[in-house]
Amino acid sequence: MRENELIAAIRARIRDPQGVTGIGDDCCVWTPSGPTCLSIDTIVEGRHFTAQATPAQVGRKAAGAALSDLAAMGAIAKGAVVAITCPSRWDGLAIMEGLIAELQRHQCPLLGGDTTVGDTLSLTVTVWGEAAHGRFLYRSGGKPGDLLVVTGPLGGSLASGRHLAPEPRFAEGAWLAGHPAVRACMDLSDGLAADAEKLARASGGGCLLLPTQIPVHPDVPEISDPIAAAMQDGEDYELLAAIAPEHWPNVQLAWPFDNPLCVVGWLIEQNEMQMEDHRGRVVPLAFRGYEHE
Amino acid sequence: MRENELIAAIRARIRDPQGVTGIGDDCCVWTPSGPTCLSIDTIVEGRHFTAQATPAQVGRKAAGAALSDLAAMGAIAKGAVVAITCPSRWDGLAIMEGLIAELQRHQCPLLGGDTTVGDTLSLTVTVWGEAAHGRFLYRSGGKPGDLLVVTGPLGGSLASGRHLAPEPRFAEGAWLAGHPAVRACMDLSDGLAADAEKLARASGGGCLLLPTQIPVHPDVPEISDPIAAAMQDGEDYELLAAIAPEHWPNVQLAWPFDNPLCVVGWLIEQNEMQMEDHRGRVVPLAFRGYEHE
Repeated sequence: MRENELIAAIRARIRDPQGVTGIGDDCCVWTPSGPTCLSIDTIVEGRHFTAQATPAQVGRKAAGAALSDLAAMGAIAKGAVVAITCPSRWDGLAIMEGLIAELQRHQCPLLGGDTTVGDTLSLTVTVWGEAAHGRFLYRSGGKPGDLLVVTGPLGGSLASGRHLAPEPRFAEGAWLAGHPAVRACMDLSDGLAADAEKLARASGGGCLLLPTQIPVHPDVPEISDPIAAAMQDGEDYELLAAIAPEHWPNVQLAWPFDNPLCVVGWLIEQNEMQMEDHRGRVVPLAFRGYEHE
Repeated sequence: MRENELIAAIRARIRDPQGVTGIGDDCCVWTPSGPTCLSIDTIVEGRHFTAQATPAQVGRKAAGAALSDLAAMGAIAKGAVVAITCPSRWDGLAIMEGLIAELQRHQCPLLGGDTTVGDTLSLTVTVWGEAAHGRFLYRSGGKPGDLLVVTGPLGGSLASGRHLAPEPRFAEGAWLAGHPAVRACMDLSDGLAADAEKLARASGGGCLLLPTQIPVHPDVPEISDPIAAAMQDGEDYELLAAIAPEHWPNVQLAWPFDNPLCVVGWLIEQNEMQMEDHRGRVVPLAFRGYEHE
């Protein structure tokens, strides 16, 4: 399918929101109603998915992984654009249909894009949004003593194929942004060990993790060390939040979602990554997440 | 260079504008002051540049080609994010330095990004902006009879290497948006023949081009047919605008830039692409621009 045909087929599948100019001009145009957050995210064949993935899965993953960044800010999605580099062996339209379906599931209009032919399938999705509850959640808002909580079980996403269907936690992110005791938040893409370090450092300190408290996903294979999997596998797309400890009981009681919020550690003043070992001693964190080369 | 080192090196080279959150969180955050336009643009090794290009040229091209879409809307750049897939044989930091320099030349802050390792160098840049003069220029605003004008000479960009240094026409785009006689605009990336067709179709009709009136760039090699080169080579990044004919004398007189605006044809009601041949007869357009596969 030539570029022009692909674009025409995509345009036939979407409709622009009122007052918004989408695909077909040099830019898309919309009128923001307030502070705006935006993220860009790439997935590449051979690194984030393999040739065994279906086109619809690839499109869904590209959209879901990008949207997860908006969810982590406590945002509502307002728009997306996609750049696709597509070898002829892949069905570009089926990929785009998977991507559009995932965007539509989160009321996010596709407003533009760019198509290129290349040897390696690659999708880059830019998404933007506005605050669901009057403020955004940043990684940098945490304070020493804040409890670190996660919104769901971790680990096993690659082994199970769950990494192909990231579930952006929009409802949870919006709820957290609406609660004044929540001071920082991010989504878990590189594994709890690596991502907790990012949140801690952005907040100006370190953290202490409690390996035995981490909820392990049933997808973790039986042959794996469950705690190592939950700490390191990555691509969970659950949220990690820092909560003022004095308000934790209220937050826990008010939390309206099926998966309970689980405390997995807390922020500390020292610029160190620590954990409690199985005898309750504080030792250096013995896990690391997926580190990109 | 590992991903974290590259990101740290980039952060050391930029500063966020006041009130804006840039690199380092799940999203960047800014407060738009009005309607916002946004574009995404990818360049890939082997298609948009070769291994002979310097890293700085690659970065500059990625930024310049994306910014050109904002210029064509009559916008001022407000922010950019970049996704880079970088094989180890390329110097990712030098690419990013070229990209940042080009953004800074147009007062556009780099506010976020994503880095991936891959076999083929690819950069996807998303840029956004706001209207320089109270309105955006669209491709769709043209009316039959409008004169088609270009802001500079065309052709030879690939042969000369000029395609590596696109010059976004921000000043010209802003001026055009500020003149009420200007009804439509786009930037020329695929060649005048293909791009005039896009503007004409978006405006609901066709156009008639005047091959002998097209300003030919001195970069066009002597062995080339100059008119074919100006019509088809692409990657000129000049602007193509549609102007109400009754106001053309005023526009031409008031135009403050060194390169004169050149009339290259006009829009017609019929859904056809036509040209005047060298005897002044109207015949079907015998040129086509670069068509993406």
